Amino acid sequence: MATGQTTTAPDFSNGAAYMNGEYVPIADAKISILDWGMIRSDCTYDVAHVWKGRFFRLEKHLDRFLKGVAKLRMQLPFDKDELEKTLHKCVTLTGLDDAYVSMTCTRGRPTGGVRDPRLAKNNFYCFAIPFVWLANQEQQERGLHMHVSSIPRIPPESVDPTVKNYHWLDMEMSLFEAYENDANFVVLKDMEGNITEGPGYNVFALHGGKWTTPTRGVLEGITRQTVLDLCRELNVTAEAGTLTEAAFRGADEILVTSTAGGVIPIVKLDGKNVGDGTPGPVTTRLRQLYWKKHSDPAWSAPLRRE
Amino acid sequence: MATGQTTTAPDFSNGAAYMNGEYVPIADAKISILDWGMIRSDCTYDVAHVWKGRFFRLEKHLDRFLKGVAKLRMQLPFDKDELEKTLHKCVTLTGLDDAYVSMTCTRGRPTGGVRDPRLAKNNFYCFAIPFVWLANQEQQERGLHMHVSSIPRIPPESVDPTVKNYHWLDMEMSLFEAYENDANFVVLKDMEGNITEGPGYNVFALHGGKWTTPTRGVLEGITRQTVLDLCRELNVTAEAGTLTEAAFRGADEILVTSTAGGVIPIVKLDGKNVGDGTPGPVTTRLRQLYWKKHSDPAWSAPLRRE
Repeated sequence: MATGQTTTAPDFSNGAAYMNGEYVPIADAKISILDWGMIRSDCTYDVAHVWKGRFFRLEKHLDRFLKGVAKLRMQLPFDKDELEKTLHKCVTLTGLDDAYVSMTCTRGRPTGGVRDPRLAKNNFYCFAIPFVWLANQEQQERGLHMHVSSIPRIPPESVDPTVKNYHWLDMEMSLFEAYENDANFVVLKDMEGNITEGPGYNVFALHGGKWTTPTRGVLEGITRQTVLDLCRELNVTAEAGTLTEAAFRGADEILVTSTAGGVIPIVKLDGKNVGDGTPGPVTTRLRQLYWKKHSDPAWSAPLRRE
Repeated sequence: MATGQTTTAPDFSNGAAYMNGEYVPIADAKISILDWGMIRSDCTYDVAHVWKGRFFRLEKHLDRFLKGVAKLRMQLPFDKDELEKTLHKCVTLTGLDDAYVSMTCTRGRPTGGVRDPRLAKNNFYCFAIPFVWLANQEQQERGLHMHVSSIPRIPPESVDPTVKNYHWLDMEMSLFEAYENDANFVVLKDMEGNITEGPGYNVFALHGGKWTTPTRGVLEGITRQTVLDLCRELNVTAEAGTLTEAAFRGADEILVTSTAGGVIPIVKLDGKNVGDGTPGPVTTRLRQLYWKKHSDPAWSAPLRRE
């Protein structure tokens, strides 16, 4: 360090990132504009969360992330234990009790101008920032408005949606469509016209006494799995299958699931009430149970503060 | 600047980027990992090139880029004139005679945790680096090997391919497939099985005396347009239309077009010779004419050095 400069401890209160082997404040967490993660969106990621000082089902997020990394034929610089430690460290640096914790592996860049992706040195980074909500508390209490997009979701044949990815332009343009239709949530159909998912969430519909969440063309969300698990606990029928647009539009209750907010009720679909236009009773029970599990040692584990 | 530090002029010889209102060496050109350009691949870009001190058909690249920015409902911080000046400045800073010149507009990030893309402050940057080749000179002389991917290209209904974008995972995974099949180029089919494009290039096939380049599900490449224009000049029949896999596999000549290398002959397709397995006569004429146009004032303009 040059003479005359003063050293101040970095401020991690807005977030901490681990990049290139060191921890930096989130404002300094930047990636080369030449990384193939940027110029080819050639990367996978995962997002876990910490609530009241406890990671929720972190193991499942780590497993899914490692599977995605392998499917894209990438390699992490360390093993699962070290990955987990790094995530814990990011959160503890921030001092946050409620945090959004993201991890990404990008292709990096092949050496010497060659285009062979097998020759790239992959690039891992992760970060913790204050918990991110898809909707604020008041919106969650009242329920939200959803639009069914006219833009089809990128098909699973082209991009494997079980590898969590940043190919979101279909969802971004759908969001514009939603806002223009006085909705703030949106869901996309597949090429056959069946319901898939929205930007950052899976959907569930209650129809004829049974919850259905789409199987094909969607991310296998951890919160989606959690709701399937909670339904079993509550003795409510729920399964992954085909969700037609007709069944969706005729649903008694609709909810979305996301790490960024858990279980969120949808009360209006393209201007029409879902059920009576207020959060449905089963949705409300699932939402309460979801948050209750956050203090249950079978579902969550305390942050390891050093 | 702190006392005791020495000031050295930045070294732009490996590339110069314009980011956040200033010019920086390419190694320092980094983007926040929270920019929606990264975490949603919500961005568009364009790539022009400078050859022997002259921009080639820059106007067409600028027009396409501005159209893409508008289609994604983004806004640049300045007008077309200023954009052009900034690109010239990036190149002159590097001192390069032959350069790859890229410009990107990302969504940026909406203010205050809101998810409404309409509220984002868009982020523009551009850079010039040494000219990038899809294939080296020897490969271009001999011709290259191509594989037809089993992975379908992301359909135009999901992501508009005329908005040049970074949704490349289908192409990246296809590249792995190609390398495993002893090829270094790859082309993807659409959902109906017709030929579309490859990673960074359009394709042309000569079949029954007529060149065809796919219309649907592809970027409307500037080099693709250039080849269509050159064919007219040479009195060779060429048009954009449907290119079936059968016509492609039975082609007398195949070429790819890209800003990163111009006209490149394909001499082998999935292990079989295209024609006699050497670059075809029309391809060679087109390639020669393509490079000749680079000194023609009707097709190119000198770099404005300050």
